[in-house]
Amino acid sequence: MTYMLDEIYEQPEVINSLMPQWLEDIAPLAEEVRCRDIRFVYVAARGSSDHAAVYCKYALEIRNKLSVALANPSAFTLYDSAPRFTSDTLVIGISQSGAGPDVVEVVRKARADGALTACIVNTPHSALAAVSEFVLRLGLGREKSVAATKTYTSSIAMAALLSSALSSDVIASQKDIAAAIQAMESALNLDKAAAEAAKQMADMKECIVLARGFNQATALEAALKLIETCYIGARAYSGADFRHGPVAQVEAGLPCLLFAPSGSTFNSMLDLGGRVLEGGAKLICISDDTRLLGLSETPIRVAQSVPDWVSPLVYAVPAQLFACRLALNRGLDPDAPRGLNKVTMTV
Amino acid sequence: MTYMLDEIYEQPEVINSLMPQWLEDIAPLAEEVRCRDIRFVYVAARGSSDHAAVYCKYALEIRNKLSVALANPSAFTLYDSAPRFTSDTLVIGISQSGAGPDVVEVVRKARADGALTACIVNTPHSALAAVSEFVLRLGLGREKSVAATKTYTSSIAMAALLSSALSSDVIASQKDIAAAIQAMESALNLDKAAAEAAKQMADMKECIVLARGFNQATALEAALKLIETCYIGARAYSGADFRHGPVAQVEAGLPCLLFAPSGSTFNSMLDLGGRVLEGGAKLICISDDTRLLGLSETPIRVAQSVPDWVSPLVYAVPAQLFACRLALNRGLDPDAPRGLNKVTMTV
Repeated sequence: MTYMLDEIYEQPEVINSLMPQWLEDIAPLAEEVRCRDIRFVYVAARGSSDHAAVYCKYALEIRNKLSVALANPSAFTLYDSAPRFTSDTLVIGISQSGAGPDVVEVVRKARADGALTACIVNTPHSALAAVSEFVLRLGLGREKSVAATKTYTSSIAMAALLSSALSSDVIASQKDIAAAIQAMESALNLDKAAAEAAKQMADMKECIVLARGFNQATALEAALKLIETCYIGARAYSGADFRHGPVAQVEAGLPCLLFAPSGSTFNSMLDLGGRVLEGGAKLICISDDTRLLGLSETPIRVAQSVPDWVSPLVYAVPAQLFACRLALNRGLDPDAPRGLNKVTMTV
Repeated sequence: MTYMLDEIYEQPEVINSLMPQWLEDIAPLAEEVRCRDIRFVYVAARGSSDHAAVYCKYALEIRNKLSVALANPSAFTLYDSAPRFTSDTLVIGISQSGAGPDVVEVVRKARADGALTACIVNTPHSALAAVSEFVLRLGLGREKSVAATKTYTSSIAMAALLSSALSSDVIASQKDIAAAIQAMESALNLDKAAAEAAKQMADMKECIVLARGFNQATALEAALKLIETCYIGARAYSGADFRHGPVAQVEAGLPCLLFAPSGSTFNSMLDLGGRVLEGGAKLICISDDTRLLGLSETPIRVAQSVPDWVSPLVYAVPAQLFACRLALNRGLDPDAPRGLNKVTMTV
């Protein structure tokens, strides 16, 4: 079919098989984080990797009580006047290619300042790996589709494993991750529901994508997949930010995708679902809870519930499948979006 | 006419007249930041205030070499498991009303942890002011339009003054800010050009808003104003992030607003202007440089050039005027967007 669909399907298996290697690579970094008493984390990334960075922020803040900033790389490149880093800061670059000069520059500068540096990268030999003290290699081989899928979920898994290695309960955390990978496998069965939703939304030109907490990463990534593969005017918001203005755009027939796993954020999303439904929006709900699914004419029911903090691994799958099916329905090639290359060089 | 238009026009004068009071309030906070050797800053906000927070991040990182994180408040509220703050961290809440429980909770928790806390707030007595050690009051009186204008630019000015007070060259910095306020005054003359652009874009349903660096705040705020007052599907991107995927949505006739003052980011924006023009986009360029303005059939020429770091004060004005004029053309009431209240309570 398409590389994108192949790579979506590969995800649970490749993550499962690569995890032992990832754990080995993470151990010395986690040890160094503890030794140095790291309290601040700074993450630089672009595109899908930046959505993995959003996940990384939630994970390290909520589970490890660290303060996490996401870089504005232009400070380092265009303005050439960036934060002064210290040795109690960990700076992480995330990039599929490891080639983007902006992300490389953030990590290079941080290392020169004496910060602890690391990267999550897929391409074996890259400029980013060369400047980073600790290199967490995804080792997925080449991702063939321009629309990233397995590099995104693998980066999320790597961040989850790092958070787990830094937590006080490594065993329980790793169990959560294992459960999520198993649930990813069963989420592949959502392909039919995603194809059905894509059929119902065949003429969709724009949409809103909403989530809260950890799945903010899922909302951002779902919107990007829809833009890249279907050229849809998709925009993602945190459910709370959405109420501070953007909710005004809700009107009859506006498609709204809601990612809402059970857990700490569910009630807030259920409430928001009611709110946008009142405004006449067309809901596409992706959830494991029937209360929200019942509001939607286009429900995508996630069969296995997993702890909220690892749920972005699972919820990424229906997001990717929906975008891919919609693109194929429209006769578009999701592997080769117009105007994009696999490696984007920005400063 | 409308409160929104009145309040847009008030901005240079009220900022000018309130600045001496703001400077007085900032001095003891700046003193404390120096005494405590603050190295990390954490900012919590929603909506337009969150765009002021984006500005604050650029200013404190680029000009003061601090590391700045923007809060995900759900960590503090829904997950009840937030970063552990220390005494070398400054946590700032920004809120027009000072009432939002989520922003209040971030600052309350930070203060309990022993961090230095401050807030930028307009309403004189508020929950946010009550939990903050240092209170920077805007003192603007009630903002009558639901669509924020003067509270946004005043929050930007307050952040610029804080950055200035922490810099090694206070006098030059304050001169820059004074020049920007003067340029805001002359930017009010862009009302005609904004009205003309609004006429040309009368049937605009969606648009892309692009900027880089400090004016990332302007792009986000411009998109929000267009959503709130005209219900347009506006989405803002950093010019660099845009190239990592979202650029695929560019097609013939798609309106793209570019905010591109001369300075460090200009060449990057000029290049991007050419790129989206190739894709057939309809450019609305807001700039003081004729090279970019020449690409656009709908140029909005900013007459006075100011240093890049204070330009968001100036560029906010044409953004607000364009949204307001477009709303009025459409017979919409920009003071009372559907589904919004002046105070939004989120957790």
